[in-house]
Amino acid sequence: MREVQPGRGSDLDSATTASVAGMTEYQHIRVERTGEAVRITMDRPARRNSLSADHLTELLTAFRAAGDSDATGVVLAGAGPVFSAGHDFGDVAARDLTGVRDLLLLCTDLMRTVHAIPQVVIARVHGLATAAGCQLVATCDLAVAAESAGFALPGGKGGWFCHTPAVPVARSVGRKRLVELALTGDVIDARTALDWGLVNRVVPDADLDATVDDLLARATRGSRASRALGKQTLYAQLDRPEQDAYALAVEVMAAASQLPGAKEGMAAFLEKRSPVWPD
Amino acid sequence: MREVQPGRGSDLDSATTASVAGMTEYQHIRVERTGEAVRITMDRPARRNSLSADHLTELLTAFRAAGDSDATGVVLAGAGPVFSAGHDFGDVAARDLTGVRDLLLLCTDLMRTVHAIPQVVIARVHGLATAAGCQLVATCDLAVAAESAGFALPGGKGGWFCHTPAVPVARSVGRKRLVELALTGDVIDARTALDWGLVNRVVPDADLDATVDDLLARATRGSRASRALGKQTLYAQLDRPEQDAYALAVEVMAAASQLPGAKEGMAAFLEKRSPVWPD
Amino acid sequence: MREVQPGRGSDLDSATTASVAGMTEYQHIRVERTGEAVRITMDRPARRNSLSADHLTELLTAFRAAGDSDATGVVLAGAGPVFSAGHDFGDVAARDLTGVRDLLLLCTDLMRTVHAIPQVVIARVHGLATAAGCQLVATCDLAVAAESAGFALPGGKGGWFCHTPAVPVARSVGRKRLVELALTGDVIDARTALDWGLVNRVVPDADLDATVDDLLARATRGSRASRALGKQTLYAQLDRPEQDAYALAVEVMAAASQLPGAKEGMAAFLEKRSPVWPD
Repeated sequence: MREVQPGRGSDLDSATTASVAGMTEYQHIRVERTGEAVRITMDRPARRNSLSADHLTELLTAFRAAGDSDATGVVLAGAGPVFSAGHDFGDVAARDLTGVRDLLLLCTDLMRTVHAIPQVVIARVHGLATAAGCQLVATCDLAVAAESAGFALPGGKGGWFCHTPAVPVARSVGRKRLVELALTGDVIDARTALDWGLVNRVVPDADLDATVDDLLARATRGSRASRALGKQTLYAQLDRPEQDAYALAVEVMAAASQLPGAKEGMAAFLEKRSPVWPD
Repeated sequence: MREVQPGRGSDLDSATTASVAGMTEYQHIRVERTGEAVRITMDRPARRNSLSADHLTELLTAFRAAGDSDATGVVLAGAGPVFSAGHDFGDVAARDLTGVRDLLLLCTDLMRTVHAIPQVVIARVHGLATAAGCQLVATCDLAVAAESAGFALPGGKGGWFCHTPAVPVARSVGRKRLVELALTGDVIDARTALDWGLVNRVVPDADLDATVDDLLARATRGSRASRALGKQTLYAQLDRPEQDAYALAVEVMAAASQLPGAKEGMAAFLEKRSPVWPD
Repeated sequence: MREVQPGRGSDLDSATTASVAGMTEYQHIRVERTGEAVRITMDRPARRNSLSADHLTELLTAFRAAGDSDATGVVLAGAGPVFSAGHDFGDVAARDLTGVRDLLLLCTDLMRTVHAIPQVVIARVHGLATAAGCQLVATCDLAVAAESAGFALPGGKGGWFCHTPAVPVARSVGRKRLVELALTGDVIDARTALDWGLVNRVVPDADLDATVDDLLARATRGSRASRALGKQTLYAQLDRPEQDAYALAVEVMAAASQLPGAKEGMAAFLEKRSPVWPD
């Protein structure tokens, strides 16, 4: 795995890795490219990978750059003992309402970007993922947790309720479970998170990277353009009355049938040969 | 069990079975009536019960006829090694955008009809149910799966994403699980489908029909008019903000209280006797 | 535990218990205050705690009074062999459409009030919770069930479908499970309810009160104003498209950051001391 620091273009030894490089020198994250995947690592272990405005801005920049790249997947990981502890109170405490609102809009913009980019995004979760850190896990398309992982919305037992983290968590787990997480602030372990549908896999810590790689490989087969449109349409149709969702999905699926990937997929199937994806 | 082929009215030996007979001679499905239930069997085993326009049209006709009949339940089954492989690429590949759109609108019309008819509809799933075949399972009111069954949204690993199949599947399983199904295209087994809430029962293959019959019998007790209104209102209130759902449910439930079935049910309860349903 | 009957103010021996006392003499429920919690007990065991208009009115009054009190939690329990059998057919059967509509609006008002009050509301469920009794369990923020508990929406096998009870149940369990409950009317046991996310804990009957107390204590830590706003915002953002939910949650969370509880929580965290909640 090679380090891909935006602004260090001269270190890049291939065109494919160059595509994720931007102009920013990252201070809080690491961005690497391995094969088809961009790995974004939150790298503020001394601050438990908390999400200061600067950290969020770098994550947003990195996800946008990954979105513009030719990568097919993005892995979001955390360095050090925890995945992410959520917002950085040191960055929040001094802000007035407008300042906090700007911070939350920035954070929400990051979440929207995770959904909007064409790549499959997997959270690689070890240790604790709490508050906005848990929100990141719930927002990523897929999530693999080590057995050591834990998940919590701790605002409910403190002074600042986890309002925005509860938004994507509510859309992965049932209502009673969301309310329990949000009100108690208690940590659930990785097995419970799997049982509740907050993560897709739980594995021994030693198997975490291999499982992430395997799931990402399985989730990035086929036509790239088809999958990108597919992912983006999923988030557009969820949470809506079924007939509204169908109204959207029918139009997108009809249009998608005319794309080269769909044509090739159907032709290969009918001709009993392996498809050669055009994108 | 007797065969009820629309257009073969002379073969029918009772008035109750005649009620599901229409004018069409079915080519791709079989429709039978046993007691209170209509059994619709997708019968294109050589094409893995794939859903060509003709097949969809017959299914739609049969569901409408069942909806107009005095049956209380409908069983949807598949003949041959799989339940249904979804759309028939041989029927899709040559269509332009408008042609595919028409096909998808036809398919969506079938799904809406399954929800709209007053009968309880159960999917009897053996073997694979993939793409629009999985959509059918998710759309049926209830589903019983044999242990041999499997479920997948394979478009995600191909060239044509399962946009419309993802609509009802998303409303049965959680978001992370929907995304995993839709992006990986991998097959989940019957036990996983039960754990995720995509089906209601998993039984050994030998017990499939008996379990379908038992669940259908349990789901078709009581007043017919009450149940029909109940089923239809469920789909109207789901996926909406709770207060919108209540606004609807209160009005329907108040009106329903004046129907003969409700009057009889309450009278029988208060008089400590068995109800005699008027419908 | 002391009895707190509204209108029996002279029996109260402390200012804190007086705050839940209103002007009404309750006939169908008992209201007690222990420490931080108000316990509301449905007390019509001979009528299986069924929800007549008078009973609903008392529950609504008691929940409103609890909402106006300084309690942090409310426990909803039932006296006698069942939790609640739902609407009282003796009270429904003679009503015309307008009369039933008024009853259902009253019932819905109770459900909204459970969500609207700032306190954490826990259902303490022993025995059967059916129809509107099951609706109450689904509506309470949290629920603890004894192993003896059972849950059902029996209208589906009778004459009057459980339209309004299905509203909150649908928002706790998946769609196929909701349809099964609503159509079959069958009772699911406590373990199944836990597996489906309808309740948060299942314990031996002997441990029911201790578990309720423990979960309520865990769910009522931290700033009171923060938690109240948190709970109320959860119900406002659920069931909406994610972007609508974020639009709401961001504004509330930004405003909440300026409340004394949030300021204290962050200051205590940064100063590595225990917080002293201002509310």
